[in-house]
Amino acid sequence: MSAQNWLLPDYLSDILPAEARRIEELRRRLLDLYRTHGFEMVTPPLVEYTDSLFAGQQDALFLQTCKLVDQISGRTMGVRADMTPQITRIDAHLLNREGVTRLCYCGSVLHAKPAGLLSDRELMQIGAEIYGYAGPEADYQVIELALESLSVAGVVNPRVDLNHPGITRALIEAFPAFANDIDTIYTYLKDKDVASLSSLLNQYPELPATIRTGLLALPQLYGGVEVLERAKQVLPDLEGVTAGLNALGEIVATLDSNLVSIDLADVTGYAYHSGVIFALYADGWHEALVRGGRYDNAGAVYGRARPATGFSLDLRKLSAGLTPAKASRAIRAPWSKDEALTANIKTLRAQGNIVVQEFPNSQFAVDEFVFEQELVFEAGAWILKDKK
Amino acid sequence: MSAQNWLLPDYLSDILPAEARRIEELRRRLLDLYRTHGFEMVTPPLVEYTDSLFAGQQDALFLQTCKLVDQISGRTMGVRADMTPQITRIDAHLLNREGVTRLCYCGSVLHAKPAGLLSDRELMQIGAEIYGYAGPEADYQVIELALESLSVAGVVNPRVDLNHPGITRALIEAFPAFANDIDTIYTYLKDKDVASLSSLLNQYPELPATIRTGLLALPQLYGGVEVLERAKQVLPDLEGVTAGLNALGEIVATLDSNLVSIDLADVTGYAYHSGVIFALYADGWHEALVRGGRYDNAGAVYGRARPATGFSLDLRKLSAGLTPAKASRAIRAPWSKDEALTANIKTLRAQGNIVVQEFPNSQFAVDEFVFEQELVFEAGAWILKDKK
Repeated sequence: MSAQNWLLPDYLSDILPAEARRIEELRRRLLDLYRTHGFEMVTPPLVEYTDSLFAGQQDALFLQTCKLVDQISGRTMGVRADMTPQITRIDAHLLNREGVTRLCYCGSVLHAKPAGLLSDRELMQIGAEIYGYAGPEADYQVIELALESLSVAGVVNPRVDLNHPGITRALIEAFPAFANDIDTIYTYLKDKDVASLSSLLNQYPELPATIRTGLLALPQLYGGVEVLERAKQVLPDLEGVTAGLNALGEIVATLDSNLVSIDLADVTGYAYHSGVIFALYADGWHEALVRGGRYDNAGAVYGRARPATGFSLDLRKLSAGLTPAKASRAIRAPWSKDEALTANIKTLRAQGNIVVQEFPNSQFAVDEFVFEQELVFEAGAWILKDKK
Repeated sequence: MSAQNWLLPDYLSDILPAEARRIEELRRRLLDLYRTHGFEMVTPPLVEYTDSLFAGQQDALFLQTCKLVDQISGRTMGVRADMTPQITRIDAHLLNREGVTRLCYCGSVLHAKPAGLLSDRELMQIGAEIYGYAGPEADYQVIELALESLSVAGVVNPRVDLNHPGITRALIEAFPAFANDIDTIYTYLKDKDVASLSSLLNQYPELPATIRTGLLALPQLYGGVEVLERAKQVLPDLEGVTAGLNALGEIVATLDSNLVSIDLADVTGYAYHSGVIFALYADGWHEALVRGGRYDNAGAVYGRARPATGFSLDLRKLSAGLTPAKASRAIRAPWSKDEALTANIKTLRAQGNIVVQEFPNSQFAVDEFVFEQELVFEAGAWILKDKK
């Protein structure tokens, strides 16, 4: 056996005491928030057949998923890289309800490779989804809940980036000759690489000028809510474009316009999403802290198409960007079978206090707790005393 | 794609609303219990190199672990099938403290095959471990905490089974000729198969009568604390036997003797454990609900041998045996941007109430909540009314 079998694989890590406890606290605060909003909790399995794990999602998820062979069926299973398709499967098949369903979840997900140089391969994904309601009220509720999630976590001044992938899709689909270059166009848009996009479009002499102008304008259609007005003037009058801009307008009207940016070239998850999508950013985090949006009909692969909108975030990333987790106050007690001491400790613990009983002739060491008081025997009784 | 891509692999399942929430509540209650006892929380990664994942554990864990290839290093990783070795690695290497360290954890573990016909392949393992203290006080604290875990979970009348694998080990090691039959002897003992054990022992004519009698007596050394007295008479006077019986005696003296059984043939985890081991049983569960015990020096493979004792349990199995989880009371509210309503809902939620705002022209369905009240507008104000 290797001399270094305490080494972990790259981009995987242990979470140590104070930080692990803070992530647990964030988990509770967010799950409680979703509970008070009527979101029911579900817990899908850590692994599933790959057939069902990617249903309705793009190739990126396939590449991100670690595969293993099921020793019972011999079929390929994957360790989930995203829980959203699992929640969609539960809504589509298992619950099979007619009405509006609000679901929330929290669990570990694993990526085969890190999403970025600063990313972990293991995430603690938490999220909330609304199924069965197509109106903007559901999108609004989801965005409000995402903002409130960051607020209860102590994130200050989050910003909301909005887009509607139907706008780009309408521009691209208006010119069927693009067929083989669609992925390339999306990549250039995501990178805001106007020069490469322009060269590519030049290869299509029959491309209508309005479509060309529209596609090249997208990377510049970034900024405050006034971008929506500019977009109406610059983009061609296609049904998908108008519908997308109107949907964005409806959501923007319900939000504090100081928080909102529009980014019509942010096409992350374009193949999966069907309506308004959003990302929340805040100082202290390089990437989006929360991503969400509408993905109607993703449940069709499980036998039932339903309107759907929701969001998720990584609790580990959220916690890592907050000020370092603090140690909690604790009480030290000696080892003794004295009944009065035992009763005293029991009462203190029942009140939520942390009491550590020291073993005979031993010392202990902690990172998560700071000992500010101790139980001592004085004048015939056990009393709490401040430690010097 | 298959027409049945909502099908899950065998022995894996979704946890639905009321049950998922109850498991979350049990998780909180137990982690809070460990916190008030001064156990610090750590969270190891879901996957690690197999080299480190099995360190110090027997072959059973290797067979139970799903393997996958690390796409970065090309090395074999495993999805953890038990978190205890990971916690030992953290104590041995990462924290590297001199004093007593108390750690707790909670996370998903995966088994390649179910441990039994009624078992799941995914467990939500929760546990607590004490490192750096060799005295019986640590074993006592661990058993008390395991009993208290079941008590706060609402399990009634748990029973404690105790054993010390050093007793069997001393009997077997006293006769070195057993070398190739050691695993078989342990299997017969675990199955309490005295006939097969007797046949096997007959193949060794040189076996001292005291060892033979001792081994054959083990399956009968089961019952109340009086078993310890019987064992002292029946078993040979070997150092390991005496030490094991004395260690059991010390622990038994601190526990309520009505709760305790001794089972000297319960050799589960024999290769791993070094001191008193225990299992907690209760009506409603076929198998042990909690398993734990002393496993000194397991950290040696990570570069540091330390005394260690602890326990773990599966929150999903714990919850499944309790009375079915109940729905929570909730309040229904209409959709409206009325500021008084919004303020009202916000206050109710801040008080911990569950308030579901219904979207326009929609119905919703829930399993986790029961709607007993609604917010209605009457005489110029929003008031809470009981639902008929």
